[in-house]
Parts: sequence; structure tokens; C-alpha cells
Amino acid sequence: MNLEQFSQYACERVNRYLDQSLSTYTPAKALHEAMRYSLFNGGKRVRPMLTYAVAELFSAANELTDASAAAVESIHAYSLIHDDLPAMDDDNLRRGKPTCHIQYDEATAILAGDALQTFAFELLSQPKFNQASVQLSLIQTLQSASGRHGMVTGQMIDLSNVNKAMSLQDLELMHRHKTGAIIKAAVKMGAQSVGVDDEEVYRSLDAYASAIGLAFQVQDDIIDITSDTQTLGKTQFSDEDANKPTYPKLLGLDGAKVLAKQLHDEAVAQVTPFGAKSVPLVELANYIIARNH
Amino acid sequence: MNLEQFSQYACERVNRYLDQSLSTYTPAKALHEAMRYSLFNGGKRVRPMLTYAVAELFSAANELTDASAAAVESIHAYSLIHDDLPAMDDDNLRRGKPTCHIQYDEATAILAGDALQTFAFELLSQPKFNQASVQLSLIQTLQSASGRHGMVTGQMIDLSNVNKAMSLQDLELMHRHKTGAIIKAAVKMGAQSVGVDDEEVYRSLDAYASAIGLAFQVQDDIIDITSDTQTLGKTQFSDEDANKPTYPKLLGLDGAKVLAKQLHDEAVAQVTPFGAKSVPLVELANYIIARNH
Repeated sequence: MNLEQFSQYACERVNRYLDQSLSTYTPAKALHEAMRYSLFNGGKRVRPMLTYAVAELFSAANELTDASAAAVESIHAYSLIHDDLPAMDDDNLRRGKPTCHIQYDEATAILAGDALQTFAFELLSQPKFNQASVQLSLIQTLQSASGRHGMVTGQMIDLSNVNKAMSLQDLELMHRHKTGAIIKAAVKMGAQSVGVDDEEVYRSLDAYASAIGLAFQVQDDIIDITSDTQTLGKTQFSDEDANKPTYPKLLGLDGAKVLAKQLHDEAVAQVTPFGAKSVPLVELANYIIARNH
Repeated sequence: MNLEQFSQYACERVNRYLDQSLSTYTPAKALHEAMRYSLFNGGKRVRPMLTYAVAELFSAANELTDASAAAVESIHAYSLIHDDLPAMDDDNLRRGKPTCHIQYDEATAILAGDALQTFAFELLSQPKFNQASVQLSLIQTLQSASGRHGMVTGQMIDLSNVNKAMSLQDLELMHRHKTGAIIKAAVKMGAQSVGVDDEEVYRSLDAYASAIGLAFQVQDDIIDITSDTQTLGKTQFSDEDANKPTYPKLLGLDGAKVLAKQLHDEAVAQVTPFGAKSVPLVELANYIIARNH
């Protein structure tokens, strides 16, 4: 399977699982609609791809892999809704479509984000799996990446550094929390979902995830200044305009490209020892530094 | 122990546990401060009291009871932060103090709420407990009360009915989701935390929780029009001003008082069969319909 095929496979699989899992009745129709609007907005599903690709290093992905991929994507979707709010990044456009608070309203967007966070823990705690210890490990991994130890702290560091000079070290600290933690969780949960219990494997996977997570962010900063608004599906120079610290600002455009390539190579070195099944993970690393949107 | 003593015991115990559990370092100082500000704002800790009182019907409260009480209170605290936001209820005052977004700013308040929700699942998933199946049950209970099946749906119903006529049935549906679900969870988790495994017991506890949850809300509506701003610690007539449906509007003040009393009696009837240990639960029910703030 090449990356395009793998991407299609992972997208279809996680979308089907999300769709089925969300279909239960709720008496607040607009809440459900806003949750769906943000979950199914044409996202690339990079995190679910990672979860499936890692699981399949070891065995066939199972329903706990589906729940893990879906839970990670729900956390990601909630974070985008809240990040886009007027009090945060104040973005009107996301993947070429109105952001949740523009399509609905601010209150609905706040609540849809809140409910999507809970939904992630709903997915992982479903009684039908009857695998309490694996499920609890998955929940530990996800919560630790999502809240004060991970993503929310990253967003807080980000917001408090707008218009401030930021060192390379601080920028990395911010990204490792804001986006890196969830990418690491997506990778780890892939292995946890199929019962991997080998510390050395987890160390390699963690190093892979850590490197591609940062590479993803460096590339994001690069394409913010090299791609136009139409290609991006969001406003070009949005980071530049918000006066946010970026890798190209600190390292120059070429320096940022060199860093992205180094991180890519580190990532690839961690997973090639897993053999032929590592191809999607290698191709994902290639994609991350080659993409222009 | 009378109710005042029991309240002091539960408050001290859950506060100590929250304080210890939050003390881990995070690189985002303001996030931590805002989380603490909202968690320790002089709340009455009614939900933790319920968790402890229910656990102690069966045996001594244990550390899982602490984690349960603390997790429920974290969900409650997060919901208050988000409810108070300008896009939601737009409240500046909570328990006589500036609300989180006034004390800090809107972005910090949104993120502190987000992180407090995650924190609840962090508390319940701690590896040190090593009781995966009980922990997973606690997480199931809490998530189901917090998100699209519970509290968030209630808040959404509430927001979409401002300035609208609402039937008694719809008002009850709203409250059962918005506040009732978490009160039920607080009660159920008390029993789960000490390993209760008796469906009939859970049915009685659920009926108790359901009745006091609704009584709490009816009483809230009553005191909104009978107590002044200073006693309330929030603006008097705030529901009245927002043109929200309330029990006194639908039933008249006397009708609302009769309903609160009926619900109280139903609640008490469910727990008196547990004997002398039910005293705190009975006194809590008494307090709920006697309080004026």
C-alpha cells in the first residue's frame, strides 16, 4: 500500500467509526451537528493514520485501534474549535470552510469542543471492549497528552508569547506540548491497542513520534510563508500577521528546511528496523516535510 | 456527625486531595493558577459531600473515593468557567468573586476549563490505584454525565431556550442533563469507589440522586427571586433578567416550593432504609431545600 492508499484506508476506517459512534440520539440537535461539522471537515487524519500504521507494525488493527484513532481525532477536533475562537486565534477559516463559531455561534462552538473532549474518553471507556487494563492505559496516554501536561499547556505557552521574542528552546517546548504530545499519543496508542508490551519498542516509537511531531510544526511554519491562501485553506501569513514566533524567523527559511530534514531522518531511522511494515510510517515522515498545505 | 461537621470533613478531604494532585509542575504558570483559582473559590462541595456520604454507607471512603470526589468537582469547576464566559451566560461574579475570565482573560478561562475536564480523567486513571476495572467504571460514569449524554447537552438546551416558552417537561429535561447528571454521577461513583456491586442499591441511589438533583435546581430558581445579591454571591434575578424559564415562572413560587418538598421526601425515602449511616444524605436533602444561597 502506498501512502495515498494507506491514507484512504485510514480515513475511511476512522470516519466510519466516528460516524457510527456519534449516531446515538441526543436531545440537543445543534450540539451534535456542530460536533459532526468539526469532526468531518476534510481533515487529513494524520493522527489516525499514525495510530493505524503503528498498530499494523505488530498485528491487524482491531476495534480498540479504531477507538484510539477516533479518540485522538476527537481531541484534535476539539482543540481546533477552541483555538479558532475569537478570544484565542480568532480564525474564520479552517480547511477552506467557516470555523465552527462562524458556522454556528461561539457558545455552540465552546460546547461542541467540550463535548468532543468528553467523547474521546467515551470512546476509550466503552464497556463492550471488556479489556479494562488496556483501556485504562489508553486513557492514561490520551489524558496526559491533552491537558495540563500536554496540549492545553502548549496552547497557553503559545498565547502568552504572541508579540514576544522566543528562544529556539522555548519554541520547541511550546510545540512539543501543543502538537507533539498528541502525535506521540496517537503513535503510542496504536501499539497499546494491539497489546504491545515491550519498553524498547515504545522508546523507538516515542523517538519517531517526537521527531515527526516537531518536523510537522517546522513544516507548518515553512508553508505559512511559502504557500498562498488558496493552497493552505487558511489565511497565508496568519502566524506572521499574529506576530508569532516561528522557525523561519529564528533560523531563516533555509535553516528551517534543514531542521525539518534532520528531524525526518531521525524519525525514519527509528522505524526502518521494523522492516517492510514500516513503509507507511516512513512515507508519512516523507509526506510531512514535502507537503505544501 | 451533623451536616456541618460532615461538610467540613468532606471539604477538607477533597480540597487536600485536589491540592496535592495539582501540585505537579507545568510550564504554563497562568494556566495552573487559573485552574486553582476556579477549583478553590469557596464552593460548597455538595457533589464531593455526596460521593463521600454514599461511600460511607458501605465502608470507609478510600483514595478512589477521594479521586472520584475530586474528579466530579473538577468537571463542575470546568463547567462553571465555561458557563460564565461572555458567549455563554456572561457572568462577572461567582460566589462573590470575579469569574475566571474576569480575573484572568477569556483565552485563559477557556483553556483552564479544558484542562480541568482532562484533569478529572487524569485523577481517575492514575496508574497507582492498580484497579483497572473499577477505575474504568468510574470513568464511564463520569464521561456519560459530562458530555453529549449529560451536562453539555443540558447547557445547550438551556442556551437555546433563552427568551422561549418552555414546558415543565422540557425544563426538567434540561435540568436533568445540565446539573442532574453530574449529581447522579457523584452519588454513583461514591458506591463504585468502594466496590459496591448490587443493582438494587444502585437503583435506590439513582432515585435519591435524581430527586435531590432536581430539588437543587428548583430551589436555585426559588432563591434567585427570594434572596438578595449579597446573600447569593451572584447577581439577584440573573435568571429572571436573562428571561430564562424557571420553576416559579411555570408553577408560581408556592408551586415550586411544593415541588421541592415532594422531591425532598422522595429522596429521603430512598436512603433511610440504609439506616443510621444515611444521616448525612438525609441532612443534605434537608439542606438543599432549606438553603437561601
